[in-house]
Amino acid sequence: MRLSSLLSTTLRQDPADPAPAGMKLLQRAGYLRATSPGRLAWSPLGVAALARLTTHLRAPLDAPQPLILAPEGPAEQGHYFGRYAGGWEAQALEVPLLRLARSEISSYRQLPATLWQQRLVSGRPWLEAWVLTPDEEALEAEMSRLQEAYSDLLTRWDLPGQPVAMLPNLLGSALAWTWASPHPEGSLRLHAGQMDSRLASLIFAQGAPAADPMAPVETPDVQTIAELAAFLQISPAETAKVVCYRATCAGHTEPQLLMVVIRGDLEVNEAAVARRVGATTMEPASEADLREVGAVPGYASPVGLSHPRLRVLADTSVVAAGGLVAGANKAHTHLKQVQYGRDYEAELTGNIHQLPAEEETLPARPLGRLEAAGTALAEGVGASCMSSQGRPEPLALGYVGWDLTELMTALCEVHHDEEGLSWPAELAPFDLALISLADGEETIAQAEHLYAALLAAGFRVLYDDRAKKAAGPGVRFKDADLRGVPLRITLGRRALSEGGAEWKARGGEPDLISVDQILARLQAWRTAFTD
Amino acid sequence: MRLSSLLSTTLRQDPADPAPAGMKLLQRAGYLRATSPGRLAWSPLGVAALARLTTHLRAPLDAPQPLILAPEGPAEQGHYFGRYAGGWEAQALEVPLLRLARSEISSYRQLPATLWQQRLVSGRPWLEAWVLTPDEEALEAEMSRLQEAYSDLLTRWDLPGQPVAMLPNLLGSALAWTWASPHPEGSLRLHAGQMDSRLASLIFAQGAPAADPMAPVETPDVQTIAELAAFLQISPAETAKVVCYRATCAGHTEPQLLMVVIRGDLEVNEAAVARRVGATTMEPASEADLREVGAVPGYASPVGLSHPRLRVLADTSVVAAGGLVAGANKAHTHLKQVQYGRDYEAELTGNIHQLPAEEETLPARPLGRLEAAGTALAEGVGASCMSSQGRPEPLALGYVGWDLTELMTALCEVHHDEEGLSWPAELAPFDLALISLADGEETIAQAEHLYAALLAAGFRVLYDDRAKKAAGPGVRFKDADLRGVPLRITLGRRALSEGGAEWKARGGEPDLISVDQILARLQAWRTAFTD
Repeated sequence: MRLSSLLSTTLRQDPADPAPAGMKLLQRAGYLRATSPGRLAWSPLGVAALARLTTHLRAPLDAPQPLILAPEGPAEQGHYFGRYAGGWEAQALEVPLLRLARSEISSYRQLPATLWQQRLVSGRPWLEAWVLTPDEEALEAEMSRLQEAYSDLLTRWDLPGQPVAMLPNLLGSALAWTWASPHPEGSLRLHAGQMDSRLASLIFAQGAPAADPMAPVETPDVQTIAELAAFLQISPAETAKVVCYRATCAGHTEPQLLMVVIRGDLEVNEAAVARRVGATTMEPASEADLREVGAVPGYASPVGLSHPRLRVLADTSVVAAGGLVAGANKAHTHLKQVQYGRDYEAELTGNIHQLPAEEETLPARPLGRLEAAGTALAEGVGASCMSSQGRPEPLALGYVGWDLTELMTALCEVHHDEEGLSWPAELAPFDLALISLADGEETIAQAEHLYAALLAAGFRVLYDDRAKKAAGPGVRFKDADLRGVPLRITLGRRALSEGGAEWKARGGEPDLISVDQILARLQAWRTAFTD
Repeated sequence: MRLSSLLSTTLRQDPADPAPAGMKLLQRAGYLRATSPGRLAWSPLGVAALARLTTHLRAPLDAPQPLILAPEGPAEQGHYFGRYAGGWEAQALEVPLLRLARSEISSYRQLPATLWQQRLVSGRPWLEAWVLTPDEEALEAEMSRLQEAYSDLLTRWDLPGQPVAMLPNLLGSALAWTWASPHPEGSLRLHAGQMDSRLASLIFAQGAPAADPMAPVETPDVQTIAELAAFLQISPAETAKVVCYRATCAGHTEPQLLMVVIRGDLEVNEAAVARRVGATTMEPASEADLREVGAVPGYASPVGLSHPRLRVLADTSVVAAGGLVAGANKAHTHLKQVQYGRDYEAELTGNIHQLPAEEETLPARPLGRLEAAGTALAEGVGASCMSSQGRPEPLALGYVGWDLTELMTALCEVHHDEEGLSWPAELAPFDLALISLADGEETIAQAEHLYAALLAAGFRVLYDDRAKKAAGPGVRFKDADLRGVPLRITLGRRALSEGGAEWKARGGEPDLISVDQILARLQAWRTAFTD
């Protein structure tokens, strides 16, 4: 790209409007402008940076095919998404995607299929992808692979992002991740969350699964979580407590014993529990109720229990956690390293805790989202394929979505220095800035010749070909640095006449080299970066 | 692309939902699906076809730079577009574009600049481009160049499209074109128009400018248009009549004589006239009024008239037309070849006629739009640059927009035969279909080898690698033909074992050739098409 005609200028000062630090860097470097509060415009330079980013984001996908879909009408969408009427789903593409799949896919032999689309969602560019598989097992395997691949990518880019479990979630998934980058202005709350209206779910950090088996520990006369935590010298968040209710539920003639398992520092949201199980009456369970299903009051947990009237519900806080301390159903005894999924299971999982105060949480910015949404939506739309057993089965759907603005902003907050942005080589929209200080016919021709040679060799070059009086050398160097280009090669007037150029890697020392050597040295430099 | 994994199937029958013929062809060929009435999904195949089309549509643009813009809020947009509040402008990008330009462009030296964006407008893909110049003169030159280049492109593609003048228009332009393709289901009306709600303007075919100078013709005792047409044996649409009013107008103390010039077959929309001139009272002018400004009743026209109380208004119908027959302001005489702009001018032009009945018009489908919008919008937004005279001047803005769905549909209605779509080589998303009938390990390896060689040589190949039992040879041939691929090369099982293949250009005879010759023959074939 030629700077003389590029619609992108740098700013010497931070823009006046409030914006996250990364967005200010992008604005100063001329990648982005706020055209009005909250509306952003990506310049040609910004489009180049987004193109580089999305190439990397598409790489983990398995043979992705592009689509152009348009959201269905709000009423139509609401019909399929049920309770999510009137929010994000007005822009969701899952219904048209599954309708397309319904007409195009008839056999499991056509699967897995991965589709993608880049589009504006609420005025911001998103990269979205969908995975279709013949069953949930294949879906979970593919989505787990993608979750790992994307986590690796973010780690490679030094993003302080962390994957966080998100259950339940937009599409009703069993497996879902949100990548979020801790940030004081973020709209998500990590660890113990604030409801986020768009994501309509709570977010918890995913704990490492318990490495050791459950182990009993004596806890004489310890009855409350506070006493337990004090006795074991741990925090209440490292325990799982149970709260039990006697409830009349739809579809059951006998009263049920609801045992809610929740992290020790949280409280049960009883309205959410009642809604989930369809309870018409609900009251705290008595000690007799507990004993009837085999639990020991004060030391109760779902571990080892099974009874026709017992219904176990697990809050997302324990599902996402690693090993916790829980009751042993034996007086004066608890168990360490109790792991949901391994040591007990629940009939229902979900967000059934009360929202803690905001100040207890860590704000974060959501960058991307991954979900193994399963077969429910395809069942609703009627999108099925013939399974290997010759039966029609609903398609299993997975989703990956990246908010490119948030991701780019987070990246810029990591990759910058005092001079401005500083792209890692693999994300830089330009391999190098070629700065020409030429002002005679002959030296300009030399610079043009080198620019053409670099393009021909496949390098992405930001060519500062502005007229001499348009910008002095200092302005040119500062612009290249603000824009984050990893390498700058300067053709000075005197250097040119002597056949030399200045080579300067970002953060490195300048080095005088012969113009003839530039191409060979660049090849070596590129090899070093791609190895 | 491999057919075995491509999310795109063909249909043997027309889709049930009503759709234009071209859209049915696209659906049968698997480029497009209707996911619900009015909502379309482009398959990976369709995305490939759109990519090919947009490459050609970007080619006439002068060094176009990509942008990602988002529309401003409706209130914000309405402020700048004035009377166009609440319609198409909610999705328009001109305001954010000019705001971006305001911060990026300071001098005429940075101009001209051409920017483009591809995006969904009301759920359909559009390619849009904007031209910025330092003044209207440069803009008009560039937009005229583009108008010619695009007209040439449409002609090359055999589209029965015709450019039609559109005055006034969305952005208040002096120069504007709509390319429209006559079609019984089109939403535009050519020649004498029906109001189109999105375009908010009437459409007239642009007539060829009068080649000869005005010439008087004797028309004794001919007073009405009907009499004139009968006398000269022409149609009323080949005449320009005047309708005169005596009106009290804001800003004028004396009554004004409004002389409306309109095509002979149309009637004046008096409410529109009153609104345009700000008339508080308006009545038919008397013969005395006419004589006062120099006009001759029964033979009146604006030609040669000038009077402080005379205000001439010209309807779009005469502005867009070529030479017409008009009064000579001399008893029993008319003038032939009277050309608006050359022989008379008006203070105001615009749509000031009544809508004729729909059956008198020719329906057409709007494909694209071009406008030299001028400086008004930039003035409003405050986007200016330093002119070569050192004065800040508002930027001049031009617009080009292509509705890719309509354009593709129109193209398909021209390029098809009994077998289905039939792309011209330059629009085909694939250069050829490689059809493999291989079913043994060795022959499959041979087909894969050829596919890889073709890709490496830069050919776009639709590779039918489906398993033998998934589709018989007849189905494969039919699919390739439905999809419109210009050439198919078939690797039959026996042919393969004998080292041969079948070469068949669309509409041509099959030809047996050696597999070794395929690449060389393809190179020659490609050269023939690109020359």
